[in-house]
Formats: sequence, C-alpha cells, structure tokens
Amino acid sequence: MLTLKDPVVLAQALIRCPSVTPDENGVLTQVQTWAKSLGFSVERPVFTDKNTPDIENLYARVGKNGPHLAFAGHTDVVPVGDEKAWNFPPFEGTIKDDKLYGRGAVDMKGGIACFIAAVARYLEKNPLKGSLSLLITNDEEGPGINGTIKLLKWAADKGEKWDATIVGEPTNPNNLGDMIKIGRRGSLSGVITVTGHQGHVAYPKRAANPINLVIKLCEALKNPVLDKGSENFEPSNLEITTIDTGNTATNVIPQHSVIRFNVRYNDNWTAETLKQEIKKRLDSVKLETKGSLVPTFKIDWVISPGGVFLTKNDELVGCLSNAIKTVTGRTPELSTSGGTSDARFIKDYCPVVEFGLVGKTMHMVDECVAIDDLEKLTKIYENFLATFFNT
Amino acid sequence: MLTLKDPVVLAQALIRCPSVTPDENGVLTQVQTWAKSLGFSVERPVFTDKNTPDIENLYARVGKNGPHLAFAGHTDVVPVGDEKAWNFPPFEGTIKDDKLYGRGAVDMKGGIACFIAAVARYLEKNPLKGSLSLLITNDEEGPGINGTIKLLKWAADKGEKWDATIVGEPTNPNNLGDMIKIGRRGSLSGVITVTGHQGHVAYPKRAANPINLVIKLCEALKNPVLDKGSENFEPSNLEITTIDTGNTATNVIPQHSVIRFNVRYNDNWTAETLKQEIKKRLDSVKLETKGSLVPTFKIDWVISPGGVFLTKNDELVGCLSNAIKTVTGRTPELSTSGGTSDARFIKDYCPVVEFGLVGKTMHMVDECVAIDDLEKLTKIYENFLATFFNT
Ligand SMILES: [Zn+2]
Ligand SMILES: [Zn+2]
Repeated sequence: MLTLKDPVVLAQALIRCPSVTPDENGVLTQVQTWAKSLGFSVERPVFTDKNTPDIENLYARVGKNGPHLAFAGHTDVVPVGDEKAWNFPPFEGTIKDDKLYGRGAVDMKGGIACFIAAVARYLEKNPLKGSLSLLITNDEEGPGINGTIKLLKWAADKGEKWDATIVGEPTNPNNLGDMIKIGRRGSLSGVITVTGHQGHVAYPKRAANPINLVIKLCEALKNPVLDKGSENFEPSNLEITTIDTGNTATNVIPQHSVIRFNVRYNDNWTAETLKQEIKKRLDSVKLETKGSLVPTFKIDWVISPGGVFLTKNDELVGCLSNAIKTVTGRTPELSTSGGTSDARFIKDYCPVVEFGLVGKTMHMVDECVAIDDLEKLTKIYENFLATFFNT
Repeated sequence: MLTLKDPVVLAQALIRCPSVTPDENGVLTQVQTWAKSLGFSVERPVFTDKNTPDIENLYARVGKNGPHLAFAGHTDVVPVGDEKAWNFPPFEGTIKDDKLYGRGAVDMKGGIACFIAAVARYLEKNPLKGSLSLLITNDEEGPGINGTIKLLKWAADKGEKWDATIVGEPTNPNNLGDMIKIGRRGSLSGVITVTGHQGHVAYPKRAANPINLVIKLCEALKNPVLDKGSENFEPSNLEITTIDTGNTATNVIPQHSVIRFNVRYNDNWTAETLKQEIKKRLDSVKLETKGSLVPTFKIDWVISPGGVFLTKNDELVGCLSNAIKTVTGRTPELSTSGGTSDARFIKDYCPVVEFGLVGKTMHMVDECVAIDDLEKLTKIYENFLATFFNT
C-alpha cells in the first residue's frame, strides 16, 4: 500500500491515460484498482443518451454506517490544443523543477490522486467509523449529460445517501489554501430572434431594420445592472455573447438578426424570476419607426440545470477551513465566484463544498502542479477525514 | 423605318437578348443596327479592369453642331431569380392584356426602345439642328467599373461635349408622369471592427466584451438624426446593415465584432464632412468597464464615387416637365429620392435629368410594362426633342 500513499505516483499514472472527454482510455480502471485495494466495492455504470456519446462512470464505497462522506470528481480532461506548443508531452507526466506536467495535472487528476492518497494514509492509521464514497465521472468537460447528474440519481435510486460531499476541482487562484467554493452562481442563456422587413437602404420607410431593435434590446438587457451582489455572492452579470446578422449586401436592410446572451446569477434570483425580469425589460422597449413597418422579436431560453446554490453548513465548511489552515497556514476565502461545476447537481442530495489544487494552468498548454501542492493537498484531505469522522 | 417608330417592337427585340450583366448576348449589336439606320455613327468600346469582367459599351452620335443632347442608359439586366416563379418566360417578350412581359421591360430596355422610336419619329419630320448621342453601357446592374464612368471619360477624351443628358431609368413610382429625378443622394459605407479581449462569461473582469462597445457605437451612429432634409432633398439616413460576431460558444465572451453601415446623404454634406461627423460621434463614445481591459475600434470607409448632386437647370427640367404634362396631363414631382444611378457620373460633364417608365416591377418576377406607357413615353421623348432643338 506504499504506492497508494504517494499522490505524485498516482497523479502520474492518471495523466498517462489520455482520457480526453469522452474517452476513458483506462483511467477509471486505474481508479477502480486502487479503490478495490483500499477495500472499496466498485461499480462502473455506463450512461447513454441520444445524440451524445456513451460515458463510463465509477461509484465506489467503503463502510456501511454513517456519517457518509463522498468525494466527487472527474477523470476526463479537455483536449491538449496545440500539442506543438507544449514543452512537455501532455500525457507523460514529466516531473521537472518540482513540478508535474500534463493535461489534467490540476483539473483534476491531481485532486483525485490526493484524495486517494489521503484515504490510504488515513485507513492505515484508523479504523473507518463511517462510510466513504467516490463519485467519479468521465464527462465533466463535455456535454455532462451522462455524467454526475445521472450518477447521483443512479446511486440515490439504489438507496445511497450522503452526509457531505467534497468536490476536488481546482479552487485556488494562486496558492494552495486561497479559496474554498461554498456555492456557485446559476447560468441562464437566451436567444433573441429579431425579425424586420428586408428592403433597399435607399428606401428605409419601405423596410424595417431589425438592427434598430437589436440595439434597443441590448441596451435594455444591460441596463440597469441586475443587482449589486448579496452577502455571499458577486453581482449577477449578463454578457451578450454574440450578435449575428449575416447580411453581405451593403445596400440591403436585412430581414433578421439574432442576439445571444448568458447570465450568471446570484441568490437574488431564481431562473424563473430572472426570466420574468428579462422578459419585462425586453417588452418595455419602444422603437421609433419611420414607416408603418416595425421589427418584432421572440426569445427562446436555454436553462442550465442546477441553478444558483449556497452551502450553509458551518460544521462542514469549518472542518475543511481548519484542515487548510493547519497545513498551509492560510485562511481560505469562502467564495461563490467563477463558473458552474458539478456541485450544482450534488447540492440537491447533500451539503457540498469544493476544494482542490491551484487552477492557474488548467485548460492551458503545459498544465502543471507543484509536487509540494500535491503533498499538501493530501495532508489537508487526510486532516479533514480525521476531523470529519471524529465528530 | 416603320419598325423603328414602334417602341413595342424594339423593346421586344431587346428583351429577347438575355443580357444579364455582364453578358452582351447581341443586345448592343441590336441597338447599333438601329442607330446606324437612323444615321448615327457608332462605336463599341470594350473596357477592362482587373478582378472584374470585360464590358461592352456603345457610343453613337448623329450631327456635328450644338446643342448636343445625350441619352444615357444600360442594356444589361439583373438575373431572373426564380425562373419557375415567372408566369411568362423572362426573355421572350410576351404580350398579354396590353402588357409586355420580360426582364428589362421597364429597367430599362423599354426606356431605350422609346428613345430610339422617338428619334426615328422626330428625324422623319425634322432636320436635326444640333447633335444627338447614345451613351449605353452593359454594366449598370453589376460592379459598374467598366461602364458609364469609363464611357464618359473615353468620349470626353475624344473631345465629346454635351449640353444635357437624359437618363432613361424608370423614375415613376406608380404612373407615367409621376416623377422626374433631378438629383440623387450620395452613398457612404463604413466598416467598424471592434476588438475586445476574449474570456469566460463567468469572469467578465478578465475579459472585455466588444459587444458592449458595439451597442454604444450603434447608438452614436443613429442618434441624433443627421439632418432634417434640405430644400430639394429628403433627410440623410444611416442604416446599420449588419452586425456580426460569429461566436458559437454560450460561455465565451468574444474577441471581435463587426458593424457595417450605409449612409444616403443629401446636399447638407459632402463625403468628407460626413466622415468627420461620423468619426466625431464614434470617438465621443465612453464605455463604463468593469475591469481594466477595454475594447477598441477602427473604421474603414467605402466611398461610392459620384456623391450627392442636384441639377439646377430650369430650362432643361422645364422642357421635360412640359413634355410630360402635354402627353400625360400630370405635373411630375421633381425628386431627389431613391438609390444612386449613373446620373451621378454624368453630372460631372453636363446637366442631367432622369425620366423613364414606371418602376413598380423592376428587378421582380414578371417584370412588365404597359403597352400604353411605351407609346406615351415615346411621345414625351419626341415632344422633348422638338422643344430642346427649337430653343
Ligand atoms: Zn474540472
Ligand atoms: Zn436600371
């Protein structure tokens, strides 16, 4: 069991499986082998859906009683991008100057390695008082349809219940110990199709330029700001991600134009109240027109599942913060910033917090993790396990 | 010479040459034959330029002295579009219920036919006191690079001088006699490229959304209105013809976005003063930004040659108005509305007015002209010739 206590060896082994979403390429089998030798019973459900690839997942549990702690994460990685730009081969796990290089080093094969190493160290010293689970998907970086959301339902349908979950995503902006994520904003997207009347630019009264309405609708979307933030959240933010008309003729007033936008919203809103607010803003737009023709619009919504959430569990957050403080000397910021993560699905089953490595190089060329961070994160997780099961 | 006095026969013959720009397909040869039999000497210069097709043109003159009247027009036609949607074959010149059908019937093979018939009738009754010319291109509906603009220069370089030109484009919105065009607005186009900083929608402070600037620039372009018109012109009008970003990722703030616009401007402006005004408006835009990154823009101009013009020649306009009144009973509106025409090039050489058929069906399926209108336009041109050469 010596090897399993070294997160560097484990992280290297995971990096060497080129598991770009949706390909498993042996990475979950590696985790399965380790979990089994640590006493976990392991299941490997494959989920399918139309129009999206089949996905392998892993659920492992050791122990029969409560309290029940789960660790959630993903073994899939984003593509390497321009492979020639890498100084170290992305799937070799090269160690150079106290850093381990490779795709997934921080997002989040390194995090999985640290947790398994922590469990190995903990179980060597302590009898397990409760239960431990691993919830691992190979589809977090892709469409996410056959991943965590289905794995949770599948396990819950079998009667699995958890008291808390830790997600091992990279949460620290600069240094290990900077930040725990205790919630996430929700995401709402919309597509506004504006339809006018095509015509010649020399005869604007015989046409209705949809772009005149596009400009007003965009102003209404952006102003005033949605809110000024809340106790635990940054302000909600709306970005217009694209406006497209596709008119190639200089002398033609176009027929259609399309606006797409995305909102990251905080706990001042639900997806429903936010849709109402946006609809109200759009409906309030009045357009001065020269002729009798007026452009019109319709909106279609793209709602991301999960929505905004905040984990209000002082014991769980305190236990993790203390472990971080003990190992790194840092008091982590309790943050709700950044993009969405699979925590938004887990929050429907049990309290969830996120803490992992330093995210700086994630999704980039020469993604890497400090060897020292791997060792420290392992110690943090081990310290957390000890406190969690003693309480 | 009987046939040459009948505009219907001439118009049919021209329609039967499928002279979609840039193809001549015999249409100018037809005009050449008629002009020669009326005593004109005819030249057929072909103009060439890189990246654009070679174009055939026709210059014909009869008479040696002044006054010298030119008739300008084009034998090329726009494509038929959906040929199955036509009730009559576009290049057959079918007559049905007192209408002549075919591509070019009103724009402007019909106009050319009427002028030639008018000359045939006039010369049968009168000795020519001055000179008559035909300036005909086969590239008005296309890029226009090897058409009227070069034909004028070519003729002027040979020493040709004109006292007045009539352009036979369809000028009447509904009924023959509605409208003479005595000027045209200028056309100015611009392309604004807005560059921001790409990023993730969840981290707007680390990005700069170019669309935020696009919206403000569009507002500045549109407001306030450029002017309220002038004595002889409608207000100048700016249309944003397209906004394109091409961002397909919902969670990404884009890097670039492009605005294209076109202005039709009146005699309150020159292309230069208008460019200054637009530049001033764009430069005045202030963007509130969340982070330190700001989007920037650059503008490129596409200036149409010719610019705005107004023909201030009471004798010429009066002579044409009287002819119209005599034949149709209508007093034509003296208008500067609508798109650009080759008159904007002619105005640099001599006073120019435009009068032709009813434009309602131009560029459309089942383009057609009333037989009665062909007869009346011929009479108007003949009446005009009589007055023009008697003064
Ligand atoms: Zn991740
Ligand atoms: Zn025309």
